[in-house]
Parts: sequence; structure tokens; C-alpha cells
Amino acid sequence: MTSYNSTDIASWERFYRANFINSLTGFKSVNLIGTVNSAGQANLGIFSSIVHIGSNPALIGYINRPLRAAPHTFANIQSTGVYTINHIHPSFVQQAHQTSAKYEEGISEFDEVGLTPEFRDSIAAPFVQESLVKYALSLQEIIPIQLNDTFLVIGKVTNVCIDLDIIAADGFINIDKADSVCSNGGDGYYQSTLINRFEYAKPGKIAQTIP
Amino acid sequence: MTSYNSTDIASWERFYRANFINSLTGFKSVNLIGTVNSAGQANLGIFSSIVHIGSNPALIGYINRPLRAAPHTFANIQSTGVYTINHIHPSFVQQAHQTSAKYEEGISEFDEVGLTPEFRDSIAAPFVQESLVKYALSLQEIIPIQLNDTFLVIGKVTNVCIDLDIIAADGFINIDKADSVCSNGGDGYYQSTLINRFEYAKPGKIAQTIP
Repeated sequence: MTSYNSTDIASWERFYRANFINSLTGFKSVNLIGTVNSAGQANLGIFSSIVHIGSNPALIGYINRPLRAAPHTFANIQSTGVYTINHIHPSFVQQAHQTSAKYEEGISEFDEVGLTPEFRDSIAAPFVQESLVKYALSLQEIIPIQLNDTFLVIGKVTNVCIDLDIIAADGFINIDKADSVCSNGGDGYYQSTLINRFEYAKPGKIAQTIP
Repeated sequence: MTSYNSTDIASWERFYRANFINSLTGFKSVNLIGTVNSAGQANLGIFSSIVHIGSNPALIGYINRPLRAAPHTFANIQSTGVYTINHIHPSFVQQAHQTSAKYEEGISEFDEVGLTPEFRDSIAAPFVQESLVKYALSLQEIIPIQLNDTFLVIGKVTNVCIDLDIIAADGFINIDKADSVCSNGGDGYYQSTLINRFEYAKPGKIAQTIP
């Protein structure tokens, strides 16, 4: 194994370092966030920093990059307090990636990349019609991370749209059966296959697989 | 598609809701965090809430559950300021899961589950010898999330141990070649296969795959 230290990492060319550090964190949940601005214009952006905060209440966070780099989704969430998070599947992974282009404000990435906004359940923000696992959130808190001018944006899950046949009897969602993709770095997309589920672990006995 | 709202979610049995919400967030980076306490005793815990905060400086965060549920790793990081994050591979996924059992303080999960602590590069915290992609961090900030008594723990990457042959020319790490696993929910582990990498996206032209 090769070992790198802080001095090595700081010396690397900017894009090399970004690719490296971005993939060091491992496979990530990658999703499309749908919003509207105060005039009702739709926006869609790809985010790979979704993080589970808690299940009761159902809180989910994402990291928003500095505002100079990623202003629109953030502004829309601040303005309306509502947004959707939509899983990505192989059939539209290229369109999903394309939403990362820096489109001007007021341009709908839905139109530009060819995905379909879906308004349902009286929610102001659009879902992605093509997505098979998707949910709406109401903004709870925005926590500034002063170390690098990013933000932890936390929402509460208010609505979930999903096919029943991928939900196991114990509530676990077989997202591999919906072919939800994950990502690595800023531009790699992956399909995943179950190795095993394991029992709740207790001291004294190695947890066994769940059949 | 079936639609659930907040009232439905709140009405669910506790473990059903936890399984459901925990898998709604999508595939997650799952890793082992290695620490020592102030007496130098090793600790190892599994965490599936690793999140990329930024590449320059190289900042990586994780969500620590409320202290009553997950006290040891957090206390050790607070006490020593240093920790390691280690990718998990299929050959030791069962041992990795077993570290989630509630062992008493001072018990080394390394010993209990059969993984090997590796001290190297003058870092106080142990790496997992069996891991093929691993890094050490120095604590930068702990941000309390008052909504549910969790914490965002942010560290700066100080050292990386990795095989050169999985790093692409542009710095991207082919973590699928190291067979790093990802997780879903609290107990499902997965292997991932590359669909495609895509070019940096710009308005006006759909980004193409990187060969």
C-alpha cells in the first residue's frame, strides 16, 4: 500500500485532488433534488451528499456546496421550504448527470435534459416522474459549516412515493430491485447487488444473515 | 405507485419506520471508524453516514447518533482528536456488521470480531489492516444537530493508505476494483458495478461517457 500525507494531498493539482478525495469517501447516494422558485419555475439538480440524520422524526440532510458554486436549489428551498429527492436509475443516469451543468437561473433542467416534472399530493415542488423511489421534504434547519462555506440542509420527510413490491415485510426497501444507482467521485455511477442482510448484532454471538 | 404522508409514517411500528426511512436515503458509504481512548485502548465501530464536505481542504463528515446510543467512538474522537475511516470489503462484511453490537467501553471490537488493528505512520488511532482503502483524520469541528440530538463530526484527511493500481490517471479512485461495499438501511451490504463515468457537464451539449 502507498501512503500519502497532508503535504502530498495539498500539493496535488486541483482536479486530481477533487477526484481523489471525492472517491475516498466511498459509494454515495446520488439523487435529483426538485424545487421551484418563488415564481413557480422548476429546477432540478443532482446531489451526492444525502445523509440519513434520523428516523423518528424522519430527518434527511444534504450538503450544499458554497453558494457561488450551487445557488439555485438552495435559494429555492430557502424561499419555499419544500423540495423533493428522487432516486436515479440506469435508464436516465446520463440526463441526471447533465443537470450538474451550470444552467442560468430560471432555466428548467427538466426541459434541458429531458426529464418530466410531476406535481402530485399538493406538494409545491416537482418530483421526477421517471424516478421509482422519491420523497418530499419540508425544510427544518440550515446549518452553516464555516470550515468551507458549505451548508447542512435538513428536511423532514412529508411524503413518499414508492412501489409496494420493493418494500420488505420489516420495512426495509429493496432499492436494488428498483435499480437505484449510487455514485463515486463526481461522475461515476454504479448498480449494486445485495451481498447479505445481517441480524441485529449483540455481543457474544456473531450476527447471522437474514434469509 | 403508493403514496405515504407524515401521518402514515408516524403511525408505523418503530422498527418498521427505522428500516424504511434508513433505506429511503439510498445506498450509503459504510465504513469502520477506528479510535483509541485516552488510555490507548482500541475501539472499532461501523458507520454508514459518511459524507463528503469538501476537497480543499479535504473535509469528511459523519453523523454520530445521540450519545446514549453511540458514545464510545465519539468520546474517543473528542479525547484524542484523531480517527481512521476504513472501507469494508466482502471478505469481512460480517465482522464489520458485528462491531455494531453494544460492547462495553474498554472492550476492543477488533478482538471481539476478529479484525486486526494496524498502527502506522505515527497515527494514534488504529487502521483496519484488512481494509484496502483507508484514511486518518484530525478532528476539525463537532456541530450539534439539535433537531434530534445527533452530531455532525467533521475531520480533515491527514493520511491515506491505498493501492496505487486502483487510482485512475485523473485521481478518481476505482473503489469497485477494491471491492469496497456500500450499505442500505441498517443491515444490508452490497457490491457495486460501474455503469459509466461522464464528462464534466456544460449547458448546451449532453455530457458523454468517459471511456
